[in-house]
Amino acid sequence: KHILVVPGDGIGAEVTTVGKQVLEAIAHKFGHEFTYDEALIGHVAIEATGSPLPDETLAKMKNADAVLFGAVGHPKYDNDPSAKVRPEQGLLKMRKELGLYANLRPIKLFDELLDASSIKPEILRGADILFFRELTGDVYFGKRERLDEGNTAYDTMIYSKYEVERIVRKAFEAARTRSKKLCSVDKANVLESSRLWREVVQALAPEYPDVTVEHQFVDATAMLLIKDPKRFDVVVTGNLFGDILTDEASQIAGSMGMLASASVGDSTGVYEPIHGSAHDITGKGVANPLASVLSVALLLDISFGLKAEAQAIIDAVDAVLKAGFRTGDIANSSTSPDKILGTGAMG
Amino acid sequence: KHILVVPGDGIGAEVTTVGKQVLEAIAHKFGHEFTYDEALIGHVAIEATGSPLPDETLAKMKNADAVLFGAVGHPKYDNDPSAKVRPEQGLLKMRKELGLYANLRPIKLFDELLDASSIKPEILRGADILFFRELTGDVYFGKRERLDEGNTAYDTMIYSKYEVERIVRKAFEAARTRSKKLCSVDKANVLESSRLWREVVQALAPEYPDVTVEHQFVDATAMLLIKDPKRFDVVVTGNLFGDILTDEASQIAGSMGMLASASVGDSTGVYEPIHGSAHDITGKGVANPLASVLSVALLLDISFGLKAEAQAIIDAVDAVLKAGFRTGDIANSSTSPDKILGTGAMG
Ligand SMILES: CC(C)[C@H](C(=O)O)[C@@H](O)C(=O)O
Ligand SMILES: CC(C)[C@H](C(=O)O)[C@@H](O)C(=O)O
Repeated sequence: KHILVVPGDGIGAEVTTVGKQVLEAIAHKFGHEFTYDEALIGHVAIEATGSPLPDETLAKMKNADAVLFGAVGHPKYDNDPSAKVRPEQGLLKMRKELGLYANLRPIKLFDELLDASSIKPEILRGADILFFRELTGDVYFGKRERLDEGNTAYDTMIYSKYEVERIVRKAFEAARTRSKKLCSVDKANVLESSRLWREVVQALAPEYPDVTVEHQFVDATAMLLIKDPKRFDVVVTGNLFGDILTDEASQIAGSMGMLASASVGDSTGVYEPIHGSAHDITGKGVANPLASVLSVALLLDISFGLKAEAQAIIDAVDAVLKAGFRTGDIANSSTSPDKILGTGAMG
Repeated sequence: KHILVVPGDGIGAEVTTVGKQVLEAIAHKFGHEFTYDEALIGHVAIEATGSPLPDETLAKMKNADAVLFGAVGHPKYDNDPSAKVRPEQGLLKMRKELGLYANLRPIKLFDELLDASSIKPEILRGADILFFRELTGDVYFGKRERLDEGNTAYDTMIYSKYEVERIVRKAFEAARTRSKKLCSVDKANVLESSRLWREVVQALAPEYPDVTVEHQFVDATAMLLIKDPKRFDVVVTGNLFGDILTDEASQIAGSMGMLASASVGDSTGVYEPIHGSAHDITGKGVANPLASVLSVALLLDISFGLKAEAQAIIDAVDAVLKAGFRTGDIANSSTSPDKILGTGAMG
């Protein structure tokens, strides 16, 4: 099996380094042989080649059996709204070119981290949500431009039935293997693209009679996720609403530093933390590598079908947390200072 | 002063009835004379006249000194994505026709409700956020249609510099009177309309050198609001992001049932709870009327400049909560059952 490591920007390099060490440890323990390559994306790729997704990187991705991804982004572009070339373009192009239309974001709290969250333990205990975020459509990929000599700007939120159907089917199928509850999130009281989304969900529902479907508006969902996270099981939504809601839901898992995601679709799967490049802590060795480590577990499970190996990683993370070790983001006042580890040691 | 009461749908009637009683009590106590009229909007207006915002209602709104608003919406339309006439169209048309471009949503926790929230008290204590949500632009009002024989649907997220500037100025001015911190929320790493938004904020900042400006992405904000609400003071954002983030932020105030909003702009101001029509509890007499009561306080303060009267209402709400009275939404296991009141009694 051939794995392409794409660290990208900011803390991407630090956390994927740990992710790769975990892959090596698994290979050793279970007698697998993995080969590796590396490639550039984002700001580092712009600096080196002028392009946020060089052709060479894309070609390597298509040839790999799986991609272990870091993060992209740089404050330089964030503060310059007129920049024409941006790191995020590399990320979006990768998602589109690889047909990664389904982004799975499991939100599950390790029991040991009940106290790391700003939400009360009794609200959190037992919460276990699987988000399906559509990843190659919506306002991320619709036409956008300036009009009126630059004084007006628009973006297009657009979905076709086909795009909605394939992600919603994946969510229905996952719901079948879990508690048979699916929540579809939209803003159908205002948006036409959401009404199309809701129509598709309603049309598919009869094919999955064992799954109970609920529709929620995105604003209500943003509230309910915090008020009562346990009411959700599988949640499916569009690209933009999924971006917002899954970042919010990271608080259910204690920290963004704990959350992994899998982007899958027509070709090579890409596995990445949901946290970003975090330039404020880059190079300080304090980033939580567990999201990358848990991304490796998703990679082994989903792309290679290695369930025991994936479970071994989750168990190891659990054991490390049980032993009291924490990175800064998941530590609290009762964590003894000698158990607060840096990125490398935590790995 | 002439006040138009527009109850709308669902629990709108129950809560505005209490709001009006409070107006009467204030008039009596402070020696004012208010005159009242009523008008229809939303589902009830569709049933009576075929239109979600009858011309008569709009005319009455334009002639009033202030509007006390309930809610709109009905499950019938939510579950029928093909409905052509919808209650929400009345709400959106009202906002546009009255030029209500600034929606102020103050998020403040009454100390007595520290325990009503799903967020930990130590995270919440002292949180005090004032949201400025733009209300007459964005994807709510851009062109939307079906293409491709109904198989594709799009909505247009659109902003002009002029629209952004007027709401951002209001937010800067409010920041001056508070802790001089302004957070602008966008998704400028992907959206052109957000890049225009950010440009405008950056261009105005030098005119308010005493205010510190921060830019955040909407996904990060959704996370930070829960992780550390105290880091925010004045927040300004577009219509869609504001819709999502303020509903989420309701958890900071313990319950959606506690939050009032003011929509102001070119003509008559409209004051309404941020909760919706809540058909699941309509007519049961359990709705929390305090959001409507607090909307009355905003009305007196902002539209009539009656600060002492507004403060008297806030103090009364505080006293009622201190005395231990609660509606179901803000009660918890330690609330004694005889202090859990219905809508009318709470009022
Ligand atoms: C970096 C950014 C463009 C990206 C997104 O919005 O999709 C990120 O927030 C994510 O969630 O993967
Ligand atoms: C009812 C709906 C159209 C409305 C909105 O999205 O603006 C509501 O959620 C609100 O926040 O006032």
